Order: sequence, then structure tokens, then C-alpha cells
Amino acid sequence: MGVSMAARMADIEPFHVMAILARAKELEAAGKPVIHMEIGEPDFSTPQPVIDAAIAAISKGDMHYTPAAGIPALRQAIAMFYRTRYGVDVDPMRIIVTPGASGALLLALGVLLSPDDEVVLADPGYPCNRHFVRLLEGRSVSIPVGPATHYQLNAALIGEHWRSRTVAALVASPANPTGTLVNQAEMAEIAQAVKVRDGQLIVDEIYHGLTYGEDAVTALAVAPDAFVVNSFSKYFQMTGWRLGWLVAPENYVREAEKLAQNIFLAPSTPAQYAALAAFQPETLHILEARRKEFEARRNFLLPALRELGFNIPVTPAGAFYLYADCSAFTNDSFKFAKDLLEQAFVAITPGVDFGGHKPEKHVRFAYTTDIAKLQDAVERIRKFVGR
Amino acid sequence: MGVSMAARMADIEPFHVMAILARAKELEAAGKPVIHMEIGEPDFSTPQPVIDAAIAAISKGDMHYTPAAGIPALRQAIAMFYRTRYGVDVDPMRIIVTPGASGALLLALGVLLSPDDEVVLADPGYPCNRHFVRLLEGRSVSIPVGPATHYQLNAALIGEHWRSRTVAALVASPANPTGTLVNQAEMAEIAQAVKVRDGQLIVDEIYHGLTYGEDAVTALAVAPDAFVVNSFSKYFQMTGWRLGWLVAPENYVREAEKLAQNIFLAPSTPAQYAALAAFQPETLHILEARRKEFEARRNFLLPALRELGFNIPVTPAGAFYLYADCSAFTNDSFKFAKDLLEQAFVAITPGVDFGGHKPEKHVRFAYTTDIAKLQDAVERIRKFVGR
Repeated sequence: MGVSMAARMADIEPFHVMAILARAKELEAAGKPVIHMEIGEPDFSTPQPVIDAAIAAISKGDMHYTPAAGIPALRQAIAMFYRTRYGVDVDPMRIIVTPGASGALLLALGVLLSPDDEVVLADPGYPCNRHFVRLLEGRSVSIPVGPATHYQLNAALIGEHWRSRTVAALVASPANPTGTLVNQAEMAEIAQAVKVRDGQLIVDEIYHGLTYGEDAVTALAVAPDAFVVNSFSKYFQMTGWRLGWLVAPENYVREAEKLAQNIFLAPSTPAQYAALAAFQPETLHILEARRKEFEARRNFLLPALRELGFNIPVTPAGAFYLYADCSAFTNDSFKFAKDLLEQAFVAITPGVDFGGHKPEKHVRFAYTTDIAKLQDAVERIRKFVGR
Repeated sequence: MGVSMAARMADIEPFHVMAILARAKELEAAGKPVIHMEIGEPDFSTPQPVIDAAIAAISKGDMHYTPAAGIPALRQAIAMFYRTRYGVDVDPMRIIVTPGASGALLLALGVLLSPDDEVVLADPGYPCNRHFVRLLEGRSVSIPVGPATHYQLNAALIGEHWRSRTVAALVASPANPTGTLVNQAEMAEIAQAVKVRDGQLIVDEIYHGLTYGEDAVTALAVAPDAFVVNSFSKYFQMTGWRLGWLVAPENYVREAEKLAQNIFLAPSTPAQYAALAAFQPETLHILEARRKEFEARRNFLLPALRELGFNIPVTPAGAFYLYADCSAFTNDSFKFAKDLLEQAFVAITPGVDFGGHKPEKHVRFAYTTDIAKLQDAVERIRKFVGR
């Protein structure tokens, strides 16, 4: 039987860190004390009130399909969260609950992109963003970003790269892998730059809540008609539940809901009932304590890595990543990451997973492990790099 | 701000039955005794052993991401199920656990279709199949089918409609909305017809297990290199958990897994741990009792509808649907369904939800409600049609 592979598959890359992760697990199985700093998910368990809500709902046994856009109570709870946390009014009808932020991004791009339509986005960035664009036969235009714009797009860069087929700009704040934010004034300028070009703004806010010293502003505060993607995975620490949401502009809600019906049927029922407890005061209290723990980790790890000779020119104010220039030690960050794992048993993510702009000079450290292990890791890295 | 809508959205239809469902709920809220025969999901709750397994796993609190293709234990359990139920050996590495059968179909088509590649499929059929093809910028070629081929594709039809850009045939057995099966000899012929044309066979087996008098054979028994889509939703009655799987041909496994990584990250963790209990003897015992209940419903409803004057020329041996020619009463099945709801409070699905081949002459009855209600419904329909 012939193999007719879709052309897109040649452009969609695997997560290269999976090779690191697989090797890390082999080493662990062989008794080596691996420290994991490659993993992009919180080490904390799902908060107990969320677990309790899930169990209560599941015990009742009615785990049938929900409406495609999610149960009304959850859509209302999310809208209420925008009100209490950001002081922003969002019509619950604009909120579509999805299978993770991945589902939300697929909906947003699915209703926007015709073949060869372009989306501008930052490089380095989360690789799946450009892969979703490719899946739908659009074209992603990766804009190299660096310290000068704190690794973010801005209005000038968007203007410079906008072409006749560009339909949207995708911004992430806080961003993966750099942990940097777009502030309110910059976001307003970006929104304006997109608007005057008759484009759509898509903002990935999945690391909202995990910020240190600087609050993330939702794009909806300055661009009420933006597409906003969010998730219960990171701040709410519900990764495995696979639940997120899309706030769609009013003009797109009906189409996004129709697409959700057809490609998802509905988001997970148990996850939705669990998530109803995510906004309760006792959950938020737990999350705030964990946020402080992430902040303490960052406050330890950032100066320690800088002192070792990693260049981290912009202080990351969010997420749980440090994106470090490792060119003091290597011009092959993938080999650096492999050697660090083999020799020091510290697993990190090579730059190649985040795009084509100087990946060989960068690695990502995730502080999704406790401070004692981070301290141990820093000492091992110190020996490894000979400092 | 301008509205740049993706061209595909004009071709992706909403579920028209949603209008019926919404009106049915209004009538119910007004105190009317609505009987639901429009809903494509089992009325039974998730089996208790599955519920118990979910609660046990969730109570431990570790609901982190799993591998993109699913937890190894579940992939092995699914492989074992192919062995015990069908006597077919499937390498667990070929099994990718997905967010519902929807996720499995997106993966299969995602690795296969380049723009304008064609997929042949049956009309009437499950509408999302052609919408997934459209989402990925492929072209679905709907082949009208009727009683002469028990509403299924066969080798001759596939040969007749295969063109230079055709890359795959999609077959569903048992099928929605018709409930008919493709038997082993026919499936072998179909597989051969596809193979000689260097195409790929995709078989939707999500209603497997729900068959009455005739066992469904998995396509893998005669076409080991088929793409097979299956689900925990229907037979295992786990709709809201959103869990399914894809069996991919060996040549496509790596690409399908790469795509899963990028667009799903991973399937739901609680659903996967729940599903581990789906294959246990006590669960299968419950499911067998429920299967018999579905069979009893079909055995009541089929002759009753025929006696009323609905033409159901092929006895449906699977799923929980009867697809009925209602042209004795109307040439506008949508109006018929609406009127039936308004006047008799019986909700059914109009043919328009299943394609373009004589939809106005057909309606679908789902027997996802108990026999007493089905009896009541038949009496109401009898009055409504004046028999």
C-alpha cells in the first residue's frame, strides 16, 4: 500500500525535548538522580477543591455530553473571573470552553484562516502556534525577537511584517519560552496596529496568574474584540484535565461554536465540573501560595544562572521559564542539553523547540521543580560548565 | 474591525438538530412531556466500575499530562481487547489514544490530506466526517447510497468515484444514521479496491459492540493496514469523558503521534485512568446487559415505525438509530420533525443533518430512551400522522 503523506507533515516538527525526556527516563531507570527542568507543566497537583468537585460530579454518574460551548455555569464563572480579577466585562456568550488552550487556538485559527493567509508571531515562541497555522494551510510569519523588545512583538514589528495576506497577529503574554510580558500600553498599540490593518488579534494568556512583581493585563481590557486563548492547565494546575477556553469576538462566536460542535462535540464533562471549583476562594488561596513558590524559585534561579555565565538579559516576569543565551559555553545548544543530561543528569530544553531564531545559542530552564532540586541543579551545572 | 472569515466556514454546517433540541428544551421548561429521540448518545450512565476507577485515580491527585499517544497501560488494554474480542493482533504502538473519535479522525485526515486531496464517503453519513476533510482543505466526495447497498459504500462505488486526487475512502460500520454494517467479505473487497488504487482506508468503528444479531468485524481483520477510529463514547458509554483512539498503519504512526503532540498535547488523564476499567469483566457484563436493552428497543421500534408507514427497507443491525423514509407523510422532513415536536412533543432528527442525498425524505429516530417512552412516542406519532 502506498504512503500518501500530507505535505504539512514535513513542516510540523516533533517536540525535540521528547528525546531528552526519553533519555532522562532511561537514566532514571538506571538509578541516576535526574533533575527535571525540561517540563512545561506545574509540578503541583490539581488543587484539592477542584479534585473534590470532580469527584462529587463524577459520583453522580451523569457524564453525558454538555453543550458544545460548555456548561453555562462554567461560562458564567469564567466571565465573572474577568470581572473580579481584571475589572473587565465579558459576555459569557463569547466564552467557548474547549479541550485545552490547544482547542481554543484551533477554533480561533479555524474560523480565521483560509489557505495561504498569514499570521505573524514571535520567534522564539511556542512551536505549536505555527503548527496550528500550518495544519489549517495558513502561513506563519515568524518575526525574530530579542532583548530589544523583551522577546515580544510590538506595533512597529507587526507593521513591518504585515502583508496583503496577513489576517492576524498572535501574541503570548506571558510568553513561552521567555516568560516576558506585554504591558497594557504596548498591548493597546499592538491592538491598534492590527486594527488599522483590518486584522485580528489573538492573544495567548495561558500563563496569566503566574506573574511575579508585574501583573499581566488581559488584552480584553484594551482590545475588547480580540481573540483570547486561556487554559485551566498552568495557573489552575489542571494540565491533565485538558480544559481551556476561547473568548471570541462577537462577530465570530457563532462560527466558532459551530466549528466546536463539529470538531470536538463538547469539552470534557468531568473537567468542566471540576473547573467550576477553580475560581472558589479556597482554590485561589492555594494557587496564590503556589504562585509565591514559583516566584521564590525564579528569584533563586535567575541570579544563579546569570552568575554562572548564562545571559538572561530581560528579567522574566511570568510563566515558569528562563530562556538563557548559553553561547558563553556552546554554539550547539542541543548538544549542550544532551551533554548536561548525560554528565550532570540535569534535563533542560534546547532552543530548537522554540523556532529558528538563534536556537543553537539558547536553552530553556523550567522551574517546575522545588528549590532544593534547583539548588542541586545549579551546583551540577556549575561543575559541568567549569565555573 | 473587519471580519475576515475563513472560507471553510461557509461549507461547515451546524447540527441542524440543535434547533430542534433547543425548542424541545423550551417546551420541556413549559411543562410539556417531550420524548427525546434526537440524541446521539446512550441514555445510560457511565458504568460504575469506570466511575470507580476514575475516582480512585483522581483521588491520588496526579492528573498531569500523559504521553501524547496515551498511557502505555491503556494502549495495551486496547490491543488486548482486539485480541480477545476479534482475535486480531494489533501492536499497542499503533494505538494512539485521542480526545474522542473526533480527535482520532482529525489525526488520520491530518496526516493524509494535502489541499484538494479527495476522500470518498457515504451520503447519508455522519456530517462531521466531511467537515473534518473541509477543515483540512481536502475535498470530500459524497457518494449517494441507499437500500441497494444497505446504505454503505462498496468496492464498485469506490472504484466508480475514485479520481486522481483521491487518497482515501472513509467507511463507517455500523453507520450513523442508518445503523447498517459492512460485513467481512464486503470490507475485504473495499480494502482491496482502495489498496489497488494506492489509497488509504479509514474505518469508523465507534458503534462497535452495539450490534444486534450480527457481529461487527473490525476492518483490521481483513485490512491490517487500515486507519481505524474508535471511541469509548458509545458502547462503553463514556460520552462526556471525550476519549477515543486511532489505530494507525505502521507507516503513519510516527507522524500521527507527532501531530497529536502538537494539536492535543495529550488526551484527558482522568478519562484514560477511567477507561482502564472499561475492559474489565464486570464492566463488559454491564455493557452486555445494556446492549440487550438497546436490542429490545430496536426490536420494538423498527416494526412499529414500519407499521405506521415509515419505510425502513434495510434492517439496521447496529448503533441506536433508525433512518426512516418519511415520504409517505411529507416531502419536507425538517418541517415534519418540527411539527412532530410542536404537536406531539416527540423530538427526532431531520435528514438534513446527514448530507445532501434525499435528506428531505428522511428522518432519524434514536432509541436512546427507554421502551415505555418509545411506546408512548409511537402512539403519539400514530396520532400525528393520522394512522
